Amino acid sequence: MGMTMTQKILAAHAGLSEVKAGQLIEANLDLVLGNDVTCPVAINVFEENGADSVFDNTKIAMIMDHFTPNKDIKAAEQVKISRQFADKYDIKNYRDVGQMGIEHALLPEIGLVGPGSLCIGADSHTCTYGALGAFSTGVGSTDMCAGMISGKAWFKVPSAIKFELVGEPQGYVSGKDVILHIIGMIGVDGALYKSMEFCGEGIKHLNMDDRLCIANMAIEAGAKNGIFPVDDITREYCDGRFQGTPVEYTADEDAEYDETYVIDLSTLRPTVAFPHLPENTKTVDEIGETEVKIDQCVIGSCTNGRLSDLRAAANVLKGKKIAKGVRCIIFPGTQQIWKDAMHEGLFDIFIDAGAVVSTPTCGPCLGGHMGILAAGEKAISTTNRNFVGRMGHVDSEVYLASPAVAAASAVKGYITDPEKL
Amino acid sequence: MGMTMTQKILAAHAGLSEVKAGQLIEANLDLVLGNDVTCPVAINVFEENGADSVFDNTKIAMIMDHFTPNKDIKAAEQVKISRQFADKYDIKNYRDVGQMGIEHALLPEIGLVGPGSLCIGADSHTCTYGALGAFSTGVGSTDMCAGMISGKAWFKVPSAIKFELVGEPQGYVSGKDVILHIIGMIGVDGALYKSMEFCGEGIKHLNMDDRLCIANMAIEAGAKNGIFPVDDITREYCDGRFQGTPVEYTADEDAEYDETYVIDLSTLRPTVAFPHLPENTKTVDEIGETEVKIDQCVIGSCTNGRLSDLRAAANVLKGKKIAKGVRCIIFPGTQQIWKDAMHEGLFDIFIDAGAVVSTPTCGPCLGGHMGILAAGEKAISTTNRNFVGRMGHVDSEVYLASPAVAAASAVKGYITDPEKL
Repeated sequence: MGMTMTQKILAAHAGLSEVKAGQLIEANLDLVLGNDVTCPVAINVFEENGADSVFDNTKIAMIMDHFTPNKDIKAAEQVKISRQFADKYDIKNYRDVGQMGIEHALLPEIGLVGPGSLCIGADSHTCTYGALGAFSTGVGSTDMCAGMISGKAWFKVPSAIKFELVGEPQGYVSGKDVILHIIGMIGVDGALYKSMEFCGEGIKHLNMDDRLCIANMAIEAGAKNGIFPVDDITREYCDGRFQGTPVEYTADEDAEYDETYVIDLSTLRPTVAFPHLPENTKTVDEIGETEVKIDQCVIGSCTNGRLSDLRAAANVLKGKKIAKGVRCIIFPGTQQIWKDAMHEGLFDIFIDAGAVVSTPTCGPCLGGHMGILAAGEKAISTTNRNFVGRMGHVDSEVYLASPAVAAASAVKGYITDPEKL
Repeated sequence: MGMTMTQKILAAHAGLSEVKAGQLIEANLDLVLGNDVTCPVAINVFEENGADSVFDNTKIAMIMDHFTPNKDIKAAEQVKISRQFADKYDIKNYRDVGQMGIEHALLPEIGLVGPGSLCIGADSHTCTYGALGAFSTGVGSTDMCAGMISGKAWFKVPSAIKFELVGEPQGYVSGKDVILHIIGMIGVDGALYKSMEFCGEGIKHLNMDDRLCIANMAIEAGAKNGIFPVDDITREYCDGRFQGTPVEYTADEDAEYDETYVIDLSTLRPTVAFPHLPENTKTVDEIGETEVKIDQCVIGSCTNGRLSDLRAAANVLKGKKIAKGVRCIIFPGTQQIWKDAMHEGLFDIFIDAGAVVSTPTCGPCLGGHMGILAAGEKAISTTNRNFVGRMGHVDSEVYLASPAVAAASAVKGYITDPEKL
């Protein structure tokens, strides 16, 4: 029996010629990631266990992004603990305000992950890097600690679901609509502890930002990881950027999949996940014109804070005004994206429309800061989760959508199809 | 006995031909201001007293700037209370995320205050507008409420101290250095309940941003207000901007002053206020090269978040890098300033230096959010207060300085004279 892409990466990093779904393996790590929320927990475990060294100070990334610029004293203390640890062990990829971005936007951008990488991160959306043909997955802070010390982690080899993408997305349909459609179809536990392996000729119509968005939300279907094959789009993205040596893994023809779905991208429509689960999807055609009045629009995050996402939002907002009573907050993913978007004139469009541009931060996505909702308020957001209270008060609501749908809705004041603006 | 500038404005608004220091008067208000912290308190008093109308819905400004974009659920609820009140009474100048800025940067910019205006605001730095030849002062939220209902407020007419400015500031000396020098000289209670009236030929060397900065910090000497005479610089600033009718008041030649100080601006040096009072000033020449290591640099706020402030910071930061371990956060005062600074290329300089640019918010100035300090951390900041715990932990420290000094210190990592960079 052949192996999936994921299984091949795991086997190679475990020094095995073959692995099977369900097998427990120990694999070498190319990167261990933590943020300002999870690093202090990992550091605490590190110190409690009397550890006094890290396996490789170039293979640990500590990205201060969740509650930075420091939201409050507690956030400041968390960052301080992380910074002191990074100083002590000379962690090369400690990134704080000014050199940073949202971790899952930053790491691909600065080339810390690439084709064939094996990465764990103490953040659930670490699965993002599967877009590059890497195996990456979220772990707890204790596992992060063990990884920092040993450079290894234990995995149960996942089985896989194949998503064969065919056709070309039409109109405003983006990577976000693809993954929301899939989660709506299979449910938030539809891929529990499995790999979501994307393949098919439709992939060539998905740019890297689309793929990063899709892989980012694999965890929202319960998946262990999401992964794309490496193609020219991947190679072009990683060329001159990836700091490691790319290794391209392709699934064996006889690889076993628990299920196979064929999805015709040309049939998809802009899709919105209603409260309070990413699986509660409706296409924009199924949403009444004044069904959902919004108070806030959030565009950005590790899911949709990349340059093409901001372009999509600007394309819709150009020459328009945000509706009265709606706060529209834009969160570019990294300092580089921020600068690129500024140079392209996107910020002019945002500011003229009445939106504001934040410095990169996870911000309101996790109810952190920079755009929290009061009781009864509703937000449309390009982020990845809409659980109860995710963006603020337990009586607030979050609707997940693409940048184009979010921007159009900000202009109208109600959730809308961008075509109808 | 003649009247001071302040006394003339108060007399005119009280319908009196003359007022004297110490006299209690009731005056008509041209503007009543509140923010997201103080509006909800005023609204609560409004409702408890069964009020059902405001005196003039065009003369009330409600600016959501302190904890916005909403820091947390409490902040979101504060803004919601304010917004609902603004909707109910059709308050024309309710400004939330996207149409706003820091109140004391925004109100002069959009022309809600100008020469001869009488303004109260439920924020201590309302004294800023004295730069325009207005009488403006901070009040409590209960007074704000009474002002919103009646359009009137009671004042005890202040006596005055005259600051005669002569000479021209040299090198990096700015308005911030002038006011820090003065507060260092007279102390934080040096002008208690008095007017600080600025005059003299040296004024012509202070641009409007310098004057707004100086008037902004009058409260830091305990003053009831700070005020500048109207000259061509004022007129040019207000022309086509001020929504009211400018009235220019000049102090009578025989106006009485408790004290007169003559300050030769050409002798001043860049000045820093050490913890924990604005009066603890040292010139940069009195500070050792590695005396004060900093963790954070804050450039912006209602004191120094205007375009010329950002230019001064950019002038120093151009081609330089922020020191390792220093977070440098820039807070433009308004959306317009943000856009203007972007168009001038200042953001390129900031980002390239490793600083970040926030959307307008009061942020860390008051320990609100977006740059809070951990225990033991030190910040150099262009804000106006450095009280214990002002920017975070009670064991953190804030050093007040001009944008040029702050920027230079961010590059060096220690508080420094920009000349020495």
